[in-house]
Amino acid sequence: MTRAVYPGTFDPPTLGHLDIVRRAAGVFDALVVGVGNNPEKRPVLSMRERLNLVRSETRDIPNVEVRSFAGLAIDFACAEKASVLLRGVRTVSDFEYETQMAGANRASSGIETVFMTPSTEFEFVSGRFVKELVAMGGDVSRLVTPSVADKLKRKLRGKRARR
Amino acid sequence: MTRAVYPGTFDPPTLGHLDIVRRAAGVFDALVVGVGNNPEKRPVLSMRERLNLVRSETRDIPNVEVRSFAGLAIDFACAEKASVLLRGVRTVSDFEYETQMAGANRASSGIETVFMTPSTEFEFVSGRFVKELVAMGGDVSRLVTPSVADKLKRKLRGKRARR
Amino acid sequence: MTRAVYPGTFDPPTLGHLDIVRRAAGVFDALVVGVGNNPEKRPVLSMRERLNLVRSETRDIPNVEVRSFAGLAIDFACAEKASVLLRGVRTVSDFEYETQMAGANRASSGIETVFMTPSTEFEFVSGRFVKELVAMGGDVSRLVTPSVADKLKRKLRGKRARR
Amino acid sequence: MTRAVYPGTFDPPTLGHLDIVRRAAGVFDALVVGVGNNPEKRPVLSMRERLNLVRSETRDIPNVEVRSFAGLAIDFACAEKASVLLRGVRTVSDFEYETQMAGANRASSGIETVFMTPSTEFEFVSGRFVKELVAMGGDVSRLVTPSVADKLKRKLRGKRARR
Amino acid sequence: MTRAVYPGTFDPPTLGHLDIVRRAAGVFDALVVGVGNNPEKRPVLSMRERLNLVRSETRDIPNVEVRSFAGLAIDFACAEKASVLLRGVRTVSDFEYETQMAGANRASSGIETVFMTPSTEFEFVSGRFVKELVAMGGDVSRLVTPSVADKLKRKLRGKRARR
Amino acid sequence: MTRAVYPGTFDPPTLGHLDIVRRAAGVFDALVVGVGNNPEKRPVLSMRERLNLVRSETRDIPNVEVRSFAGLAIDFACAEKASVLLRGVRTVSDFEYETQMAGANRASSGIETVFMTPSTEFEFVSGRFVKELVAMGGDVSRLVTPSVADKLKRKLRGKRARR
Repeated sequence: MTRAVYPGTFDPPTLGHLDIVRRAAGVFDALVVGVGNNPEKRPVLSMRERLNLVRSETRDIPNVEVRSFAGLAIDFACAEKASVLLRGVRTVSDFEYETQMAGANRASSGIETVFMTPSTEFEFVSGRFVKELVAMGGDVSRLVTPSVADKLKRKLRGKRARR
Repeated sequence: MTRAVYPGTFDPPTLGHLDIVRRAAGVFDALVVGVGNNPEKRPVLSMRERLNLVRSETRDIPNVEVRSFAGLAIDFACAEKASVLLRGVRTVSDFEYETQMAGANRASSGIETVFMTPSTEFEFVSGRFVKELVAMGGDVSRLVTPSVADKLKRKLRGKRARR
Repeated sequence: MTRAVYPGTFDPPTLGHLDIVRRAAGVFDALVVGVGNNPEKRPVLSMRERLNLVRSETRDIPNVEVRSFAGLAIDFACAEKASVLLRGVRTVSDFEYETQMAGANRASSGIETVFMTPSTEFEFVSGRFVKELVAMGGDVSRLVTPSVADKLKRKLRGKRARR
Repeated sequence: MTRAVYPGTFDPPTLGHLDIVRRAAGVFDALVVGVGNNPEKRPVLSMRERLNLVRSETRDIPNVEVRSFAGLAIDFACAEKASVLLRGVRTVSDFEYETQMAGANRASSGIETVFMTPSTEFEFVSGRFVKELVAMGGDVSRLVTPSVADKLKRKLRGKRARR
Repeated sequence: MTRAVYPGTFDPPTLGHLDIVRRAAGVFDALVVGVGNNPEKRPVLSMRERLNLVRSETRDIPNVEVRSFAGLAIDFACAEKASVLLRGVRTVSDFEYETQMAGANRASSGIETVFMTPSTEFEFVSGRFVKELVAMGGDVSRLVTPSVADKLKRKLRGKRARR
Repeated sequence: MTRAVYPGTFDPPTLGHLDIVRRAAGVFDALVVGVGNNPEKRPVLSMRERLNLVRSETRDIPNVEVRSFAGLAIDFACAEKASVLLRGVRTVSDFEYETQMAGANRASSGIETVFMTPSTEFEFVSGRFVKELVAMGGDVSRLVTPSVADKLKRKLRGKRARR
């Protein structure tokens, strides 16, 4: 029985994230999606909003749970008694950084990191890119679900209008 | 229950390969190591030699099986009824190539590719590098097991002497 | 007749940018340089300053026009009835990002992205690097034209003195 | 009027090559596809076969011509009086190599190099990969046209059977 | 007699930095560690704190001196009459950037840049990463010395508590 | 006193190699250029030819010696009592490979590896590229010295004519 943790900020959850969740749910027996509370990153969506969005988009996958965490992803994975830390890698920089973290995490905890790459159509989708597009009025309908798009528009365009 | 296939040429099996086999055996319920029969690559060790070396080095891991295959890794994974194709990635070029193959393989077979990276101390070990070192009289004791080293020395230095 | 759009922030326009404009003007029948209005990037130079600098530096090239735009580069290219979006790529990270955007842009608009790389002597020149150099009192005479250097010095050193 | 040259070995022409030809024909006024005669690369298909395949696959595009050349691509581009050398780049290694060649070629000839990247679905397709797949009995129907696949199978499987 | 300068922000000095200082002190006759005063980077530790930490950690190496500098590293190297600028490179992005700077610096000053890479166990350690870990309560005992860890904890956790 | 070894195949020595030798001779007290005897690489020029070419091109640099070696570069560096192994790195792949070798070599011998990058104008010059250009009749006068060009032309074009 393999229990895996997939940590992230999910600000917002993109179709790329959801694609990895869905595919990973077929690979591992149980998958815990960890939504990180990292105030340094100044997320646009609140923790409650991010948790609700990830939960509603993954509600139909039986072996997926969604939890919040604070602090380090590896400490969360230990607390969840996971044996696998799952990471999505999109770019050469991601790959270099994650390779090095994987070694450090294994040395300190015994937890293995495994990597999955996004489906081709989501390769260029990052949370930051989605937020930039929304802020500039671009179309994000192929990058996030409609409810994520709505939530972001209210937040980002409202914020702008108020300036 | 997740069944994974880890394909390769294993000419020779290095400590880097064996490290991934051992770690992956902790992640997946069953792991099939596939030793590929690819005459275009002109392996130094015969299929029988490579199979025997991989088998003897992994004999103590209960959920690992070792099989030979001809043709494509993805066809072998289908025939083995695996849901996961496991690939080790060491370099940026590996990462680019494997990312693209993962997409193609998933589209054609529904099998997911997951990646693991070698432990730091094996990052620079490739089969080709081990063979070059043996051919030039270098010390490979930190790169392969003693029985692999012996087998390669007999093959490569013998071959050279006969020239 | 090929009409190309070359979008950017041009904060400031560097010799690298101007080199690409000049070379691209020889490749395409008409070239529209688009100066982007992206308040999230908090440019040091105002839109009017950037437009004026790009215009005065390219005044002698007959088939180049300079325009401002707000929103997405691809929407600007459509509005300009361009068939080509031109992008300069300097680094491996640029290359990865731009490759992925090119696919997304072509899918949504039919506009092709083509890439040019800077001349060797401008490879290390980025707008951000020029601003850092000016702020630290470095010599930027090989990176930007004299009028750009003057404008930046007044802005960045004045700003500093006022702190 | 921009005349571009797109040189390559085309052993075989893949759907990735043909995709670039078709898209580039929309960008440039005239496009000359140059099929290179480079005996060091020991192509599987003869020059006549490669020329015929590229020609029959691009017959319907009015502003495309197909020619053979020997020697350097840049000398061919000069002889064709082209102002642009078009290169497809797929990987980080391609990008590094081509960037450096572009500078050298411009310095020696004044010809500009412009780059296009393959459509996402052809990112992993290289001539070498197609040949390996055919040799191992894999399905190449999404990588090359049927007539290219037939030609390669007769060549590569015949060759193998005769060993 | 070769005199080398090793410039950086050292906010904080990591075990990776100290490892390079120690190894470089064996390669060059004299090594000047330059602690940069760059207010744009908003360092967490003051110049005095960074100087003291680097000095106390390198006190036992006879041919190492520690100095502060303002402005450009290359100007500091010239003022120190060094013939070598030493740079640590960890990632592909570092490598690209530093390669380009090396050329620019040599052209303007005649000073050669040489590169060293961190020991494997420090590959993933950057000053920014250490600060993030401390801020999230992670264990940094394998990344910095105890006195650096103490100093950072007082600064970063105090700052947080005060918000 | 720092003694460095710069190993390579030098088949042929390019202007890029000679540029690094000349610059490194200013950085280190003594520099030994090691010309490797590696029959697996099937060099076009014989060991005697390569030694003679490197020697005649570096004759005027007083602190440079040129030696042949067989086997591993690191063993040669030990035998020469060098404390530094010097490597030129041009590309991202070079960088990844050399970084990993540097760690392995330091662990086994205590010898430090330092890196230098080629001057911008030689970035794209590799021995293999020079040989391909000569074989196709290209102009190599900016890549190698006239005597190297002559030697290669006699070898490579003669060989071709005899086929």
